[in-house]
Amino acid sequence: MSLIVQKYGGTSVGSPERILNVARRVKKWHDQGHQVVVVVSAMSGVTDNLIKLARDVSSTPNEREMDVLLSTGEQTTIALTAMALNELGVKAISLTGAQAGIQTDGVFTKAKIQNITPRKVFNYIEEGNVVIVAGFQGVNPDGNITTLGRGGSDLTAIALAAVLKADVCQVYTDVDGVYTCDPRIVKTATKIDEVSYDEMLEMASLGSKVMQSRSVEFAKKFKVVFEVRSSLSEEPGTIVKEETRKMEEVVIRGVSVDKNQVKLSLESLPDKPGIAARLFRTVSNAHVNVDMIVQNPGHADQKVTDLTFTTSKEDLAKVRGVLEKFVDDCRKDSPKVVLREPEEVAKLSIVGVGMRSHSGVAATMFEALAEAKVNIQMISTSEIKISVIIALKEVDRAANIVHERFGLSA
Amino acid sequence: MSLIVQKYGGTSVGSPERILNVARRVKKWHDQGHQVVVVVSAMSGVTDNLIKLARDVSSTPNEREMDVLLSTGEQTTIALTAMALNELGVKAISLTGAQAGIQTDGVFTKAKIQNITPRKVFNYIEEGNVVIVAGFQGVNPDGNITTLGRGGSDLTAIALAAVLKADVCQVYTDVDGVYTCDPRIVKTATKIDEVSYDEMLEMASLGSKVMQSRSVEFAKKFKVVFEVRSSLSEEPGTIVKEETRKMEEVVIRGVSVDKNQVKLSLESLPDKPGIAARLFRTVSNAHVNVDMIVQNPGHADQKVTDLTFTTSKEDLAKVRGVLEKFVDDCRKDSPKVVLREPEEVAKLSIVGVGMRSHSGVAATMFEALAEAKVNIQMISTSEIKISVIIALKEVDRAANIVHERFGLSA
Repeated sequence: MSLIVQKYGGTSVGSPERILNVARRVKKWHDQGHQVVVVVSAMSGVTDNLIKLARDVSSTPNEREMDVLLSTGEQTTIALTAMALNELGVKAISLTGAQAGIQTDGVFTKAKIQNITPRKVFNYIEEGNVVIVAGFQGVNPDGNITTLGRGGSDLTAIALAAVLKADVCQVYTDVDGVYTCDPRIVKTATKIDEVSYDEMLEMASLGSKVMQSRSVEFAKKFKVVFEVRSSLSEEPGTIVKEETRKMEEVVIRGVSVDKNQVKLSLESLPDKPGIAARLFRTVSNAHVNVDMIVQNPGHADQKVTDLTFTTSKEDLAKVRGVLEKFVDDCRKDSPKVVLREPEEVAKLSIVGVGMRSHSGVAATMFEALAEAKVNIQMISTSEIKISVIIALKEVDRAANIVHERFGLSA
Repeated sequence: MSLIVQKYGGTSVGSPERILNVARRVKKWHDQGHQVVVVVSAMSGVTDNLIKLARDVSSTPNEREMDVLLSTGEQTTIALTAMALNELGVKAISLTGAQAGIQTDGVFTKAKIQNITPRKVFNYIEEGNVVIVAGFQGVNPDGNITTLGRGGSDLTAIALAAVLKADVCQVYTDVDGVYTCDPRIVKTATKIDEVSYDEMLEMASLGSKVMQSRSVEFAKKFKVVFEVRSSLSEEPGTIVKEETRKMEEVVIRGVSVDKNQVKLSLESLPDKPGIAARLFRTVSNAHVNVDMIVQNPGHADQKVTDLTFTTSKEDLAKVRGVLEKFVDDCRKDSPKVVLREPEEVAKLSIVGVGMRSHSGVAATMFEALAEAKVNIQMISTSEIKISVIIALKEVDRAANIVHERFGLSA
């Protein structure tokens, strides 16, 4: 008998019929003798409707009240899920975040879990109940309802699994695991059986939409083994856990593609200390997240330098305005400064803890791209990741070539 | 400066625009320097939708989970109302039933308020907030969410007014007060300025839909003065309060009409002790509420008697089945027992504490009906009420005649 924490997202509980499907799945595990704690999100669409209602009564809805409002979404789902389980003859009881003892700080709409007092959850499990906990929500020290922000339900599940010392935490989604690459781009991509927290974190930050980084970080910190799997099939998914020696035997775990990048270049900037600091402070003040940065070493005789960086397409309008103003300022002293026309680009990355013990990984990647005549515009590396910026129109082809070269294809 | 508790029902908060209207009304009182506590119901339609969802996942939804589910309706409204007040520049904060300290027993879906710990409400008022409390809900000693059943939001408002020692409790509805008769029946009906708790209780039990009896009983018990008024106008409504000497000066306060009655007669029952007890125990076991009962004294020589009673139309199918079985049983010993065909009838009542000090009130009513050739089928009286059962098709005319005779017409 194991203690299992299962998390179902908004799509999995998107209608009464789907909630009954979730209940059937939970019952299957329960009937096998497992103790099950279920964390659910709001039914898909519900949160958006609530946000719309809020905007209808207020241009800038109060954040404390926003949390009171949004938390009703998950509260609705827990009640319905418990009812559905009862209907199937399974003893089940629902708990709001507050009732489940999920204590957070007081930062409304993006609270952090500070502590969990799982007494009620434990007691109800011991009495033979399936316990249904509202994801995404908690209570602050003053007794106010708080919500955890995007991906909050995953966080609830992983935090509960940690404090309950669950044997496994199953995160059910609409994909059946983590793939070696997006199967829409690389048809031969295969499901990964096991991935380390660090690899999963790199993949999350490189554009894989499976899970938010902070849930993975939380799992890593508290050593919670979790499995990403599909709520539509019975197949095992991908296990995310601490790195094992065996994981290093594989050179790279997967290939990530991010088509949502834009490249910005400033040319002929005065090559003097502090210029980069000034530029990126300006950009940061506009709340634009910069991804990759490359500074071309300036020629000593010209005393100018070029700075290139990438950001996401959504931030383009904001960053462009900021940069145009920055360039105008620079031109007072350095009339040659130019802001090049922003260019949509793609980021292709390979991830794997195997890089640490296998030499020449970067060279292999660059060779593969060179043979395919794909021009590399920027390069960035970490201990377990290599990213390159290439032309948007070439990235699908490049991803297939790299995926094949590292032996990931089925 | 007064402390005012205001209650707004589902229709008054039925859309974002209406919630903003409520907020404007609250602001008006707040701007005049009053401290305001607002109790709100779920937006109209929301509770029905939630019940439908529950029925979609379960044929007999668990009652504890039903309360978790339904309580989201009021929680949504409190958040939106607080946001709307903020939008108008008024400091406001929402509290769920549990947060407001509304403690109940553990009877899910129809819990009773046992105690209120209004510390948070007090503190937030003292800090200058309008406090928005979710009606209809509380928390039981085990920390489970409970709901108070039909009319629960009125109860929340009156209980809060009691414990906060509010100066007045305003119950906003879609009518502008209590009338001397239903204006759809008697065009000359007028709004009553003041009515005693007992009169209001009689009117509620006689079919006036303005308020549930138990909220009025609660107000009476804790001497909470409340006002029934319209959320669509600025006119004062009807004050409900303890009886004053002045109230007795009026002979009757109002005329009530209940068109939802059905009359059932059993004839030639054996006239022996215990027959009525057996009959009404049988009816009660079928959860049918009996209203008026008349037993014709049997002729000594025939040793039979007739029993007639009224119930509401909704219960007709249930009570009929029960009575047919009862009659079959009786016939084993008394073959002449007959169940007459049920008949739809109406109940016309006059209510007023003035009856106590004015003689001949019943006679006046019966004379008025006799002159109009309205036949009285049954009579029932209490200290402050006289009810008669008459033919359904005559009740509108009869109501106008009685209303006029007692000088209630405008």
